[in-house]
Amino acid sequence: MCSNPKRRGGCNGSGLNMLSSLHKNPQLNTNGELTHLLSIHGLPVEILTQILDTASSFLKVSDRDVKKVPLLRGKSVFNVFFENSTRTRTTFEIAAKRLSADVINLDVTRSSTAKGETLLDTVDNLVAMHADMFVVRHAASGAPYLIVDHLRRVGRTDVHVVNAGDGRHSHPTQGLLDMYTIRHYKKGFTNLTVAIVGDILHSRVARSDIHALKTLGVAQIRAVGPQTLMPADVEKMGVRVCNDLQEGLRDCDVVIMLRLQNERMNGVLLPSAREYFSSYGLTPETLALAKDDAIVMHPGPMNRGVEIDSEVADGPQAVILPQVTFGIAVRMAVMSILAGN
Amino acid sequence: MCSNPKRRGGCNGSGLNMLSSLHKNPQLNTNGELTHLLSIHGLPVEILTQILDTASSFLKVSDRDVKKVPLLRGKSVFNVFFENSTRTRTTFEIAAKRLSADVINLDVTRSSTAKGETLLDTVDNLVAMHADMFVVRHAASGAPYLIVDHLRRVGRTDVHVVNAGDGRHSHPTQGLLDMYTIRHYKKGFTNLTVAIVGDILHSRVARSDIHALKTLGVAQIRAVGPQTLMPADVEKMGVRVCNDLQEGLRDCDVVIMLRLQNERMNGVLLPSAREYFSSYGLTPETLALAKDDAIVMHPGPMNRGVEIDSEVADGPQAVILPQVTFGIAVRMAVMSILAGN
Amino acid sequence: MCSNPKRRGGCNGSGLNMLSSLHKNPQLNTNGELTHLLSIHGLPVEILTQILDTASSFLKVSDRDVKKVPLLRGKSVFNVFFENSTRTRTTFEIAAKRLSADVINLDVTRSSTAKGETLLDTVDNLVAMHADMFVVRHAASGAPYLIVDHLRRVGRTDVHVVNAGDGRHSHPTQGLLDMYTIRHYKKGFTNLTVAIVGDILHSRVARSDIHALKTLGVAQIRAVGPQTLMPADVEKMGVRVCNDLQEGLRDCDVVIMLRLQNERMNGVLLPSAREYFSSYGLTPETLALAKDDAIVMHPGPMNRGVEIDSEVADGPQAVILPQVTFGIAVRMAVMSILAGN
Repeated sequence: MCSNPKRRGGCNGSGLNMLSSLHKNPQLNTNGELTHLLSIHGLPVEILTQILDTASSFLKVSDRDVKKVPLLRGKSVFNVFFENSTRTRTTFEIAAKRLSADVINLDVTRSSTAKGETLLDTVDNLVAMHADMFVVRHAASGAPYLIVDHLRRVGRTDVHVVNAGDGRHSHPTQGLLDMYTIRHYKKGFTNLTVAIVGDILHSRVARSDIHALKTLGVAQIRAVGPQTLMPADVEKMGVRVCNDLQEGLRDCDVVIMLRLQNERMNGVLLPSAREYFSSYGLTPETLALAKDDAIVMHPGPMNRGVEIDSEVADGPQAVILPQVTFGIAVRMAVMSILAGN
Repeated sequence: MCSNPKRRGGCNGSGLNMLSSLHKNPQLNTNGELTHLLSIHGLPVEILTQILDTASSFLKVSDRDVKKVPLLRGKSVFNVFFENSTRTRTTFEIAAKRLSADVINLDVTRSSTAKGETLLDTVDNLVAMHADMFVVRHAASGAPYLIVDHLRRVGRTDVHVVNAGDGRHSHPTQGLLDMYTIRHYKKGFTNLTVAIVGDILHSRVARSDIHALKTLGVAQIRAVGPQTLMPADVEKMGVRVCNDLQEGLRDCDVVIMLRLQNERMNGVLLPSAREYFSSYGLTPETLALAKDDAIVMHPGPMNRGVEIDSEVADGPQAVILPQVTFGIAVRMAVMSILAGN
Repeated sequence: MCSNPKRRGGCNGSGLNMLSSLHKNPQLNTNGELTHLLSIHGLPVEILTQILDTASSFLKVSDRDVKKVPLLRGKSVFNVFFENSTRTRTTFEIAAKRLSADVINLDVTRSSTAKGETLLDTVDNLVAMHADMFVVRHAASGAPYLIVDHLRRVGRTDVHVVNAGDGRHSHPTQGLLDMYTIRHYKKGFTNLTVAIVGDILHSRVARSDIHALKTLGVAQIRAVGPQTLMPADVEKMGVRVCNDLQEGLRDCDVVIMLRLQNERMNGVLLPSAREYFSSYGLTPETLALAKDDAIVMHPGPMNRGVEIDSEVADGPQAVILPQVTFGIAVRMAVMSILAGN
């Protein structure tokens, strides 16, 4: 039921990534250090590990009585959200405040761009206000890359960009917090089988997770879902496609459930929510096919009764709330690493 | 014109409240200390007095050149408003910032709950982000209780909840600032006659004030307004009902005017705003029936010319703006007491 | 093509301003010091120079690693925006945070005023919350004056008001940052010819710039634009009117382009955007008529291809982004001067 990935020569390790990234990866500076976080694609394993290790130290900060460190004191972090996402904005706002930064939230959907100003004019203006970091969310894939490219052309290498989700393309901090979660519970990556279940086609989370899991060397990645929600090129990414949920979950160590966007349902790609649940919803019965110690992850917000049964969501194998906790620590790690480089 | 309250056995003191609250009052911890503020109903007089005394010390902080104390430094306070209220949110935001907390405003009307996430999933997520305190406003009576009950079940006794208004039920910080105001100007409660005037039926402020005044032992509480805006059970709360304004105001020490919601007017419950004003609007003439040193209170925002005449609102007996000042101090007191317990 | 201004006796210097301002200028306290910033009109040259000199010292703060000074620590600054302007609000928010103030943003378009509360009741409430400073944006000319007048009547001389734009009347911090920019690049004012180009009629920026340039003693001010967008009294302000762009730009030292409001176009006052650009758009060709070292300014956000060609906007003579940088320093200067007086 699961089809094998078509192997591409050279798509198998961090060595090549490291090499090529030094030359043309816009995320790395000339020393090969992280200066923007745009996508997990192209990040060498050393940098992924550096982020996860740094996050581990910040996790202790959030547990302290005074949950603040002065690493970004006096820095101005701008949350520039061209697409509304209260939850993601909140996680970055908390992370920046715990690093003692000044945080300014720009709801760009209501501002000058509506008056006809271009994206790059907005960026230039914020840079002129001495912004130190942009956290960017945009409905268009590639928008953060456009900003990074522009900053390079105007010579502002001291301003950093974090991609907080661009179109269907990438959501790197979600990918990183998923890796943190897996490493925390499974103590490593190499022997794992990971199933990503749901709407792979429209998911920037799935894309980020697949890149990260490949770089960190998991044994097998499975993309599980109906063929209509499977991207054309997913097998080329080294992923096994499974259209059958039972087959996809069998003996896996990690189950990453994706959120089913409401707007996809009752459309041409999908039958009703009820039919989706009966085929691809994670229930205690289907989860029993995975290993006994398999963990269940979800990026939130959950559609209970659509992609996941409440019994599983609230059950002992779910690590969905720890993901949120780790997400703050990972965002603190990314921001402090960028500001330090 | 005023009808006498039907006395209920045992509804007369703080002793019973204290006793029962130790066992089942979700606002108090096992030591009988305040750990959430949900409602004034059920709070013993000792705790009300503790809050008012603490507020008194914070009043001095707001008068200083540097209006901050470090009591909540490094704590994360979330203003979770399921119902828009800029004014109330602002008072809590100021109070938390003056305690040096990090404040995150969540306009939940625009966020994930709109994407189908449940109230408790939102709460779980914020707790996972290491929230220390929730300030909750909700159109549904009882929503903050639901959150407190959930926190207890998941074992998070370190997270505190402040009810910033739930449906028609309760608005405890408004009740507390009203008590602070009365104590400030009248130096005590026991000999006072207090008239609450207006739309008692729909008012969470009235309900909170009545509970507080009963606990603090005022001599007489009068509910003044048209019978259509009088709750069925108000006499059972130990309150005299007066449908006639003149009768209700006569010789009283404190007049608490309620805001008339615009949406109530021109409906089945009420005639026009002009007719309401002529029967129940507080004017210099009707106020003259109260004691000479009676104070006039209003929770704001005022409808000048509807429930209150501008001459009274801006006159020497009005203590409406001091109420706002006391409100900041009371909210600082509540937050610091909760965080300390 | 340019018509000469009609000279008015006494409209020529700062001496008269200084004298009269001590008696009735609501912006100055009894010592002649700045206590509110409402309009550049009526400010003596000494105060303009004090603001520009103070801004100069703050410019260095924004370049430091920790971009904060503790001058407003523990102060509460309220951004009270009765008209939405994300960009202007952001500049004041950054300026206040870099002075270490607590900043509270009030989107009044969504709050109690919608519930019928008056402007002055809102102000009274915020004063009762111990506000130290109001930054006010209002669609009605004179609204900030109304607030200042009210504060004086209630005896609150410790609360300061900054006008962040009122109707067509005034936008003094924009005027001040424009003066800072001119002084920075031209080292003085007395020998300069300054052309202000575009919709003079509806522009609070033009009005503020003209008052500032007069006070600072520039040699010549030209108002350049179609007659339909020229205020009736502009010549009385000591300004040359030029309906021809070429004539208006010839040999000038400074070109201040104004934003053409979209809502003006295709109306009775103006032909299409394309026709406007062909007559009054600033291009490399028309800019060549100005002095070789002329600078080009714009308050933003720009309409590229309407009032300004991209080649000019991004060219070597444009100082549009430095204006933004200077704007933060000027706002920090104004706030710290007000708080100190």
